[in-house]
Amino acid sequence: MSAPDLPAFDIASLSDFYRNGGSVADIVERVFARIAQVNDPGIFLHLADRQAVLAEASRLGAYDSARPLFGIPFAVKDNIDVAGMPTTAACPDYAYLPEHDAEVVRLLREAGALVIGKTNLDQFATGLVGVRSPYPIPKNAIDPSLVPGGSSSGSAVATAQGIVSFALGTDTAGSGRIPAGLNNIVGLKPSLGALSTTGVIPACRTLDCVSIFALTVEDAWTVFSVAALPDPADAYSRALPAGARIAPPVLTIGVPAPADRAFFGDTAMEAAYGQALDTLKRLGHRLVEIPFAPFYDVANLLYEGAWVAERYAAVKSFFDTRESAFHPVTRKIYGGAKALSAADAFNGLYALQALKKRLAPVIASVDLFCVPTAPRHYTLAELEAEPIRENSRLGTYTNFVNLLDLCGIAVPTATRPDGLPASVTLLAPAGKDGLVATLGQTLHAASGLTLGATGWPQPATVAPEPDTSGDGLIDLVVVGAHLSGMPLNHQLVALDGQFSRAARTTADYRLYALAGTVPPKPGMIRVADGEGTHIEVEIWRLTPSAFGRFVAAIPAPLGIGTIALSDGTSAKGFLCEPVAIAAGAADISAFGGWRAYCAKA
Amino acid sequence: MSAPDLPAFDIASLSDFYRNGGSVADIVERVFARIAQVNDPGIFLHLADRQAVLAEASRLGAYDSARPLFGIPFAVKDNIDVAGMPTTAACPDYAYLPEHDAEVVRLLREAGALVIGKTNLDQFATGLVGVRSPYPIPKNAIDPSLVPGGSSSGSAVATAQGIVSFALGTDTAGSGRIPAGLNNIVGLKPSLGALSTTGVIPACRTLDCVSIFALTVEDAWTVFSVAALPDPADAYSRALPAGARIAPPVLTIGVPAPADRAFFGDTAMEAAYGQALDTLKRLGHRLVEIPFAPFYDVANLLYEGAWVAERYAAVKSFFDTRESAFHPVTRKIYGGAKALSAADAFNGLYALQALKKRLAPVIASVDLFCVPTAPRHYTLAELEAEPIRENSRLGTYTNFVNLLDLCGIAVPTATRPDGLPASVTLLAPAGKDGLVATLGQTLHAASGLTLGATGWPQPATVAPEPDTSGDGLIDLVVVGAHLSGMPLNHQLVALDGQFSRAARTTADYRLYALAGTVPPKPGMIRVADGEGTHIEVEIWRLTPSAFGRFVAAIPAPLGIGTIALSDGTSAKGFLCEPVAIAAGAADISAFGGWRAYCAKA
Repeated sequence: MSAPDLPAFDIASLSDFYRNGGSVADIVERVFARIAQVNDPGIFLHLADRQAVLAEASRLGAYDSARPLFGIPFAVKDNIDVAGMPTTAACPDYAYLPEHDAEVVRLLREAGALVIGKTNLDQFATGLVGVRSPYPIPKNAIDPSLVPGGSSSGSAVATAQGIVSFALGTDTAGSGRIPAGLNNIVGLKPSLGALSTTGVIPACRTLDCVSIFALTVEDAWTVFSVAALPDPADAYSRALPAGARIAPPVLTIGVPAPADRAFFGDTAMEAAYGQALDTLKRLGHRLVEIPFAPFYDVANLLYEGAWVAERYAAVKSFFDTRESAFHPVTRKIYGGAKALSAADAFNGLYALQALKKRLAPVIASVDLFCVPTAPRHYTLAELEAEPIRENSRLGTYTNFVNLLDLCGIAVPTATRPDGLPASVTLLAPAGKDGLVATLGQTLHAASGLTLGATGWPQPATVAPEPDTSGDGLIDLVVVGAHLSGMPLNHQLVALDGQFSRAARTTADYRLYALAGTVPPKPGMIRVADGEGTHIEVEIWRLTPSAFGRFVAAIPAPLGIGTIALSDGTSAKGFLCEPVAIAAGAADISAFGGWRAYCAKA
Repeated sequence: MSAPDLPAFDIASLSDFYRNGGSVADIVERVFARIAQVNDPGIFLHLADRQAVLAEASRLGAYDSARPLFGIPFAVKDNIDVAGMPTTAACPDYAYLPEHDAEVVRLLREAGALVIGKTNLDQFATGLVGVRSPYPIPKNAIDPSLVPGGSSSGSAVATAQGIVSFALGTDTAGSGRIPAGLNNIVGLKPSLGALSTTGVIPACRTLDCVSIFALTVEDAWTVFSVAALPDPADAYSRALPAGARIAPPVLTIGVPAPADRAFFGDTAMEAAYGQALDTLKRLGHRLVEIPFAPFYDVANLLYEGAWVAERYAAVKSFFDTRESAFHPVTRKIYGGAKALSAADAFNGLYALQALKKRLAPVIASVDLFCVPTAPRHYTLAELEAEPIRENSRLGTYTNFVNLLDLCGIAVPTATRPDGLPASVTLLAPAGKDGLVATLGQTLHAASGLTLGATGWPQPATVAPEPDTSGDGLIDLVVVGAHLSGMPLNHQLVALDGQFSRAARTTADYRLYALAGTVPPKPGMIRVADGEGTHIEVEIWRLTPSAFGRFVAAIPAPLGIGTIALSDGTSAKGFLCEPVAIAAGAADISAFGGWRAYCAKA
């Protein structure tokens, strides 16, 4: 059997490739070939050993659909631990060799993903530019004269160049969104606490999160779904709603009032943002213009206020003894935090709380927000001229987000007339990751853009299923005292249960009269092939809430499991704990059902 | 028509008096007569003008049942503004004359209550003793040789002496509970943010709340119900559940494990606490002994950590320029905060977050806690000998409460053989003010005590209605892949499931690793007496609808039945059809649980 052609690197295409017999080793070889082809020494600070990755690929064995990231190559920002690879945070003197994977890395590898290497970043994840590193600077994947964006620069570029399918970043001020916006890829910034930060070097511990760069929203969501697990070892981990992918037809979307938009002279970015908003309107959504000054007031707290002290606190002993090991810009920022007092820190918290209070009704008034990801592109030369100011401007639409406990996703929306990428970020309160991802996917699909800098087309997407979870009725197989006319049938009626039909089980069950039950009840047990018989049952229908209350009220030894029916279907229905059968129950299977037994007993 | 006899000052008795034609002016005269009779110059720092109060009483007009505090006299701690009366915080040089009532005072006056005066306190509400004031010290209402307790000393004593019906305090570390406990009255410490702090001098802004001293729980609840309104001007105000008075018949009540109880030599207090626990058991509740070391670790953060900086931040410019105006002990405490850095502050927040994470399942495992209010009584002489240490010891059972976002109520439980009052405090998570008040009322009624130092009997109370709402959450016992951190846990999270607690089954179960399940799953089966073992499980809570949908999605051979737990309770949880065990499942019961098996497998 000849292997299929090598696929694009989005997860759907790679999984198809493996499902059809493609080899993980071929993909690993392709990764390393692509690294050589891209030839950007700034992307990786440490590259996995090719033979080691091939060995790991080999250990994966045959394609396993239970592993959603089977054979998927990914990169890891170098402030996140990967066992056996040095963690540097782009500060060589700080480097250490971790023994354990960060918890998110562990989960992704367990799902079949392969670590290709550790990526460059703004030192200690402080910056939105991607050039505050003592290593070569990763080149913007679309135009090497532009800043790549940061702090997760290497992860974004590796993804945009098609070297890996996805990459982990971190996001405190916008580091998971800005480089996505500047490199034509997707940047999913989860709700704070949704992904574990165990094994991640902190920037601001109260605001940090691990983020996901991917070629498509679908891919980012797949990774998120694997990685989003509560972690008892992470004090800031939260059990959040998983963010089910729901797509209400009309969303109310907040956008900055025109007077509060800033593009710092980049008219192409301004035009692209306007076009993205037009697309949202065309998709049927309702736009609401929001005064954005209080959001900018929040943003200003991040670098002008007490939170810089969190960065300093995270590396205090290293900074106090090895200040000269820092990048000059980073050193200046951290040094400023040394003078801040505990009273300053609390005053910062009070200022944030006041703004949160003021913004709470504004945020509650919309389903989500749509903002530009970055206000503009900067060339490397422009940034060099004003390194602090332009970094700050890049964060116009990102710095307030984690302080306000929002989740978000940056998605490409257009290629501007000058060939540069445009992007918007969708934002919503924590726990609504699924909502922003759903709209993000629609918006990305509407753009018709190719992926990153690869030229690969977007794969056909399956629209997420509409939200039908809710109110479908649940079929319940009743066997004994709940049958029509039997003593407990009134319980079903009281719950507005509807009689659906009489049915019988497959020939795999035995029925017992339980000892000492009032009213008398049977217990039905599934047995091994050839040892059972058909049992007559009834099917009743209940709402989920009624079904839940019904199940909660069933006493031992009875319970609810899955009953196989003779018509080939199955449904929820009464089971019995075997210990009750052992306790002197009479086998009444020969009657073929509880009603027949009661009639003859 | 002759006026009825002058009543006791509990709100029920006073309202009856007014309803029957009694005059507010007579009550006002009685208040001032009582002040003269008590003759304690330490209680009030400012007394309302008698004629002004009579004029205000006159403006109230005829009895109006729509004003729940019609004609009810109250006192206000002197760190809370009353328009036209100086606010001193017990620091004369700090005094100012507010133009507006604090928001809580405004609400209470609007409901008909009359301000009698401003009460003494530990300066800037820093202390639990009531003697850190440059003014005369309020005398403990039960025994003047004892410390009155603080910081809300004057408010507690004014209430205990029957001068006012209730009084406002504040509570950051225990200032609303300790003086209640030492003066035989009720101290209601609301959930943080339930009562506005607008117009209150901050101690620790992230932890402060206004508290209520009253003669009865019913009175405290009436005042709470009037005052608990969200305040848009208070950044820390929260719209919390109204705290409905519910009284489940059997409550699970956490108490400090005996080894973790401290009474510092006061054996009468220890005995009284044991008797209060006996009363709770006699009332039908279930006591659970909880290791309290982590709670004490939280408590230690309050004065040894960063939060002292909040106190300093609240009066920074005054302290920096007028340090000598402070009480010597207060000055020492505040001065220590000047040296704390912003990094220290954030490190304190991190330490708290780690402890919160660790304690969350412990707190979720009980309905409420019952602790001693104060570990012991101190004479004024004993305190003078060790002013810092004994103040700290008084806070043993109070200092951790606001840091953990608990609400609470201190209620008298007994008069000890030596004639001194004993008290316990009931604590529960924020928003459960109604629950602790309900049990507090039962406990106070069971004591048969008279009110404060007045000799007035407790008025007859109407028991609140039991909780018969149908929408309670359903406990679900999970055993395997749905445990926290396991591959299917996200299903519970997606259904807004709440982790309740870790638990273990009775010794009647066996656990099997099911063959061929993806992800790997166990099956748990109940077996005959003596053949099983305990299995570690977790309990999650779901709404009936979510529970119904969850059960409907469980594949064979698993199902939901009733699981018996080692604590004597039972709950719905995972069962397994025996046929699946017969099909080659390995018995892994010896591991004691799925998590241990996975770790070692």
